[in-house]
Amino acid sequence: MGVLARRRLDQLTKPPGSLGRLEDLARDLCVMTGQCPPPLRAAVIFTLAGDHGVVAEGVSAYPQVVTAQMVENFLTGGAAVNVLARHVGARVVVADFGITGPALDHPGLQQRRVAPGTANLTHGPALSRAQAVAALEAGAALVEEERPRGLDLIGTGEMGIGNTTAASAITAAFTGLPAEAVTGRGTGVDDAAWRRKAEVVERGLAVNRPDAADALDVLAKVGGLEIAGLAGVILAGAARRIPVILDGFIAGAAALAAVTLKPEARHYLIAAHRSAEPGHRHVLAALGLDPYLDLGMRLGEGTGAALGIGLARAAVAVLAEMATFKSAGVSEGA
Amino acid sequence: MGVLARRRLDQLTKPPGSLGRLEDLARDLCVMTGQCPPPLRAAVIFTLAGDHGVVAEGVSAYPQVVTAQMVENFLTGGAAVNVLARHVGARVVVADFGITGPALDHPGLQQRRVAPGTANLTHGPALSRAQAVAALEAGAALVEEERPRGLDLIGTGEMGIGNTTAASAITAAFTGLPAEAVTGRGTGVDDAAWRRKAEVVERGLAVNRPDAADALDVLAKVGGLEIAGLAGVILAGAARRIPVILDGFIAGAAALAAVTLKPEARHYLIAAHRSAEPGHRHVLAALGLDPYLDLGMRLGEGTGAALGIGLARAAVAVLAEMATFKSAGVSEGA
Repeated sequence: MGVLARRRLDQLTKPPGSLGRLEDLARDLCVMTGQCPPPLRAAVIFTLAGDHGVVAEGVSAYPQVVTAQMVENFLTGGAAVNVLARHVGARVVVADFGITGPALDHPGLQQRRVAPGTANLTHGPALSRAQAVAALEAGAALVEEERPRGLDLIGTGEMGIGNTTAASAITAAFTGLPAEAVTGRGTGVDDAAWRRKAEVVERGLAVNRPDAADALDVLAKVGGLEIAGLAGVILAGAARRIPVILDGFIAGAAALAAVTLKPEARHYLIAAHRSAEPGHRHVLAALGLDPYLDLGMRLGEGTGAALGIGLARAAVAVLAEMATFKSAGVSEGA
Repeated sequence: MGVLARRRLDQLTKPPGSLGRLEDLARDLCVMTGQCPPPLRAAVIFTLAGDHGVVAEGVSAYPQVVTAQMVENFLTGGAAVNVLARHVGARVVVADFGITGPALDHPGLQQRRVAPGTANLTHGPALSRAQAVAALEAGAALVEEERPRGLDLIGTGEMGIGNTTAASAITAAFTGLPAEAVTGRGTGVDDAAWRRKAEVVERGLAVNRPDAADALDVLAKVGGLEIAGLAGVILAGAARRIPVILDGFIAGAAALAAVTLKPEARHYLIAAHRSAEPGHRHVLAALGLDPYLDLGMRLGEGTGAALGIGLARAAVAVLAEMATFKSAGVSEGA
C-alpha cells in the first residue's frame, strides 16, 4: 500500500516529493487505513477529563475546579479545542473520566467517571490497577460507540489540572530519564513551582516504583484516569485501523503506555505537533515519531490534534483531487 | 493594536501564551489590519506565471512548455495549489505575466503578459527596466482589481520553469551570499545540473552586476516577470494593509525586492513556511521572518501560502470565537 501510494503521488502534477512531509502524511494514512486515498470524512477529537490528587502538592498555576469549569466550556463550544475542531470540521467528544465534585449534567457529556479523581501520587499509587484497567476499557469503548456515527480519523485530547505532572512521571517511568528532563511548566508555573513539580515527580516515582515493562502498573501508580482512557482510545483506534493523531505531551504519555501494551499500535500514530513541554521531545523520540508542526503550543485539550487533522485532510485532498501528468497533459521531468 | 490583541488573547480560556505561535499570528494579523479580530473572509492566492530564457542553460528538470501546461492545469483546478486553496477556502487568481508561446485562451486567466518570457540572464539583462516596472505595476493592479470581489488576505504563488535560478540570483544579489549558498535543486535536478545551475547564477551576476540598492535593477537584470509581478502584489497588499502570506523561495525573492523598494512593506509579510530550497532560509533571515511551517515543501504555486492561510484562519477563529474566563465562568490562574 505504501508503494501504491508513492506511485500515485508521483503521478500527480508536481515534481516527485515536492510537497515534502505532506506527501509522507498522505502515504502513511494510506498504509494505516489500507485505502488509497484513505477516507477521512469523519474526524473526532476525544477530549477526556480527569482530576489529579497531586494538585495538593502545588504543581499547577490553576485551581482544581478549572477541570470541571473547562469541561463545561467544552460542552458550550467556547474552548480552543471547539474553535479549532470547527475550523477543521471535526467533532469533539467530551468525556468525564474522573473529575472531582458533582457529576456535570449535560446531554453532550459522556459519563465515564471511574473515580472522582486520582489519589496523590506522592503518597502511593494514583489509581488501583483495576481503576486503570476500567479507564482504559472505557476509552476503548468510547471509540467503539462512536464508530456508528462515522469515525475515520481520531484526535486525542484531554483536560485535567495537574496532568502534566502525571505525564512527566509516566514519561520518566517509561524512558528512564530523570524527572527534571521531562518536567515542564505546564499551565505556566514559576521557577520555584517548577522545581517543586520536578521534585514531586521524583518522589512519585520513588514512592511507587512503577514497572516500565508493565504499562498498567505505570498508568495506575503515576498516571491519571483521562490518560489511561486515552491509552484505550489509541488501542481501539489502532485495532480498527483508524489513524490516531496525537496531540501533545499528555497524549504522548498515553501513547507510550499504549505501545508498551501493544507495540503494533505504533503504526497507527501520527504526531500532530511538538509541544513546548520539554518532556514531549523525549516522548516523541521514544515513540519514533516526527511531529508535523512546531508552533510552541502547550494547551492540550486536543488543540494540536485539531491542526493535525487539518493537515491530514489537506494531504488526502492532494492525493484524491490533484490531476495526474497524464490527465492534465503535462510533460513529465527528465 | 498589538497590546489590545495581546490583552484579548490573555482573556481567553487558556493559559496565557499556551497556543504559542498561533497567538503571535493572531496578534500580527490584528496589527497589520488595524482590526481585532481581523476580517479574514476573503483570501486570494495570486499565482503569476512567467517563462525564463535561462532554461536554455539546462537548469531545470522540466521543459519550458510545462509553465503553460501547468497554467492550464491551474485553470481547470487540478494542480496542488487549487486543491489546497479549496481546502482552506481561498480563491486562486491565475495570471500570465510572461509565458512563451501563444496566449492561452481561457476566461479564468488574467492576461498580463509583459513579454513572452525573459531573456537568458547569462547573456545580459533578463528584462529591460521598463519591463520590470510594467510587471511590477501589473502585479499591483491585479490586487486593486481583485479588491471589489473581497480581499482580506493575500497569498503569493507562482509558476515558471527556471524561476528558482532567477530567485537564486536575486537572493545572491540582495544578500551578497555566494551562488552555491543560495542555489538549490528546484524541481529536482541532479548533482551535475545543480553545479551547472550555481555556475549559471554566478555568471548571471557577473555579466549583469545588479545594484542591490536598486530593486528594479535587480528584478530587471536577473529577475523574472512573475517575480516582479509578485513584488507588485506585495507592495499593493501592504499599501492597503492587507496581510500578505508568502509562499516559498520565489515569493521570498520577490519580497526582498519589495522591501528594498518600500521598507514598510515588511510589516505586512507573513512567512507561511520554510521551503526545502536552501536559499530560502537566507531570504527569511534577510527579511527577518520566522516561518510557521517546516514541512520540506518546495513546489511553489502558492501551496505553502495556502497552508499558511489555513493557519491564519485558525488563529483568527481562536481570537474571534473563544470564550473568555469571564464569559465562561472559568477561574483564572495564580
